Amino acid sequence: MTLDKPSKKPARPKFLRALSGEPVWPPPLWLMRQAGRYLPEYREIRAKSASFLDFCYDPKSTVEATLQPIRRFGFDAAILFSDILVVPDALGQKVSFESGEGPRLDPVHDEAGISKLRESIDLDRLAPVFETVSRLKQDLPRDTPLIGFCGAPWTVASYMVAGRGTPDQAPARLFAYRHPILFRKIIDKLVTASIDYLLAQVKAGVDAIQIFDTWAGVLPAGEFDRWCVSPIAAIVAGVKAVYPDIPVIVFARGAGPRLIELEDATEAQAIGLDTSVDPEWAATLPETTVLQGNLDPLALIAGGAALEEGVTRILAAFRHRPHIFNLGHGILPETPIAHVERLVDLVRRDQI
Amino acid sequence: MTLDKPSKKPARPKFLRALSGEPVWPPPLWLMRQAGRYLPEYREIRAKSASFLDFCYDPKSTVEATLQPIRRFGFDAAILFSDILVVPDALGQKVSFESGEGPRLDPVHDEAGISKLRESIDLDRLAPVFETVSRLKQDLPRDTPLIGFCGAPWTVASYMVAGRGTPDQAPARLFAYRHPILFRKIIDKLVTASIDYLLAQVKAGVDAIQIFDTWAGVLPAGEFDRWCVSPIAAIVAGVKAVYPDIPVIVFARGAGPRLIELEDATEAQAIGLDTSVDPEWAATLPETTVLQGNLDPLALIAGGAALEEGVTRILAAFRHRPHIFNLGHGILPETPIAHVERLVDLVRRDQI
Repeated sequence: MTLDKPSKKPARPKFLRALSGEPVWPPPLWLMRQAGRYLPEYREIRAKSASFLDFCYDPKSTVEATLQPIRRFGFDAAILFSDILVVPDALGQKVSFESGEGPRLDPVHDEAGISKLRESIDLDRLAPVFETVSRLKQDLPRDTPLIGFCGAPWTVASYMVAGRGTPDQAPARLFAYRHPILFRKIIDKLVTASIDYLLAQVKAGVDAIQIFDTWAGVLPAGEFDRWCVSPIAAIVAGVKAVYPDIPVIVFARGAGPRLIELEDATEAQAIGLDTSVDPEWAATLPETTVLQGNLDPLALIAGGAALEEGVTRILAAFRHRPHIFNLGHGILPETPIAHVERLVDLVRRDQI
Repeated sequence: MTLDKPSKKPARPKFLRALSGEPVWPPPLWLMRQAGRYLPEYREIRAKSASFLDFCYDPKSTVEATLQPIRRFGFDAAILFSDILVVPDALGQKVSFESGEGPRLDPVHDEAGISKLRESIDLDRLAPVFETVSRLKQDLPRDTPLIGFCGAPWTVASYMVAGRGTPDQAPARLFAYRHPILFRKIIDKLVTASIDYLLAQVKAGVDAIQIFDTWAGVLPAGEFDRWCVSPIAAIVAGVKAVYPDIPVIVFARGAGPRLIELEDATEAQAIGLDTSVDPEWAATLPETTVLQGNLDPLALIAGGAALEEGVTRILAAFRHRPHIFNLGHGILPETPIAHVERLVDLVRRDQI
């Protein structure tokens, strides 16, 4: 009668099956910034911390923030609540978040500024992040994998140089043109720091990694190779040298047709697609690459026919290859909860 | 001895030869926003007009602004000095330019707002533009063609709906998702208005046309077809129905791999490439399409090795096909004059 006995080994989570290249239908679903300001329960706990950085370094807060969207929507993966700028913080750069104004950093724009940074990343400073990961591995449902992450060197460096966000990261682009050797030093430091940071996340228990290059799109061809593709490839290789089986997703917003190059140059399992990528074009990328994306966050705010059309188009384009459903950029604070519920229904009811 | 007699017919300008598909070496060169704030002589005449719109509607000013960069740099084409928002102005929408803040319009975001717009574009209101074209045809060197232009419907509509510029034109994108039928009315009105406007520019004497879709890149796939590709294709067809031989350049910033679709769907002669397009990828587009672009305006600010590398990469990629050298976006006010002079030298000395 052993055949009737249910297996003790739980089924492998959909998200990890899709990431390993298995076609899964309906596709697993999670949303960039799914833990965040569109959730009233997030705003409630966030209000209790004086600063955003305090919040990021408080495991009680970050565990709760990470769990909230899983409880509410049952997404197929959780993503560690944190911020890409904890890396410059742990390299000794002064980082703060002004309410309503975004991040502020003491800009690094010369040799002296670079030499003030730590030689290597301060993993003790980041201990609360790893503590969060360990606790989440206890608290998350067993079938909900946890995604760790870091910002890609170009994107992180663009904040380090400018000291803030800008519409097109012009300060860092100009700095890189004028002082390529100095800029290379920052990028190289970030490559090493990111590898160390991600290795520690994996050690603490994350099941997959996403690297965010939010500002990749502002770089022209030569600079894109230099500051986006090569550093990301080096990070993925560095992580895989220690943990060959950890799946990696690379999200380079605005890369356009250069996703082909990125896909080719890195050992990442999956490529994240931003909103502007035509799913039908993306479906021409090699089938060995898992694609993630790419609903317009504004279609999710609009809801109704716009949401249905967007979801249908994406599901149809990726029906026959491994795909992870996501937005093309982070979910926006104005997003109605009911529309997220509708999205979950649309993706999960098999109707294509 | 007739063979030695110089022909009375002047050689066809390089810019028009390249636009007709002829490989020209070195390629013709002009810069988006070449008439503008980086020129001290422009700032001087601009200071004499109370408002930017007054300036745009004063032929004396616009003729002079158009001629200034030709005198200084001898570019291979001049572009009419004007603004894309004269079209909503001539449709009856209130348009103004606040100093240092960009355009302000009375937003159109409902049926009532749309019904207040004129049925068709007020060409009398735009008479100063056509007057400018006529005068320029007298004043420009004979071998310097004049480019007329308009904004593409999506880009113009995005300002009409939001009432201002925004980082990602979210107000218009949301409006289009929520009220596609109303938004279609605005787009259709702009298609007709743009055709009428461009026909009048051609009648007044422009030698070529460029259609600017500065905000194309923020649209996801379905919306891109609907609001970028189809309206532009309709405008090009409408202009060509009357003037089949007028060359048209389409510049859709951020279109990425969707340039293939745009190239395929319109009768335009040339496609403008933004800074993010890899020249080597663009060179895989059909040889029948003339490519224009795409130096990073920040490389022009940086100068030095960054400028040389950028120019060399672009010249090399397009060496064997018709190409018009340009920036990948408008020249920035901070650009040193000496760097523009250097650019002209780099493009014109045949060293690749």
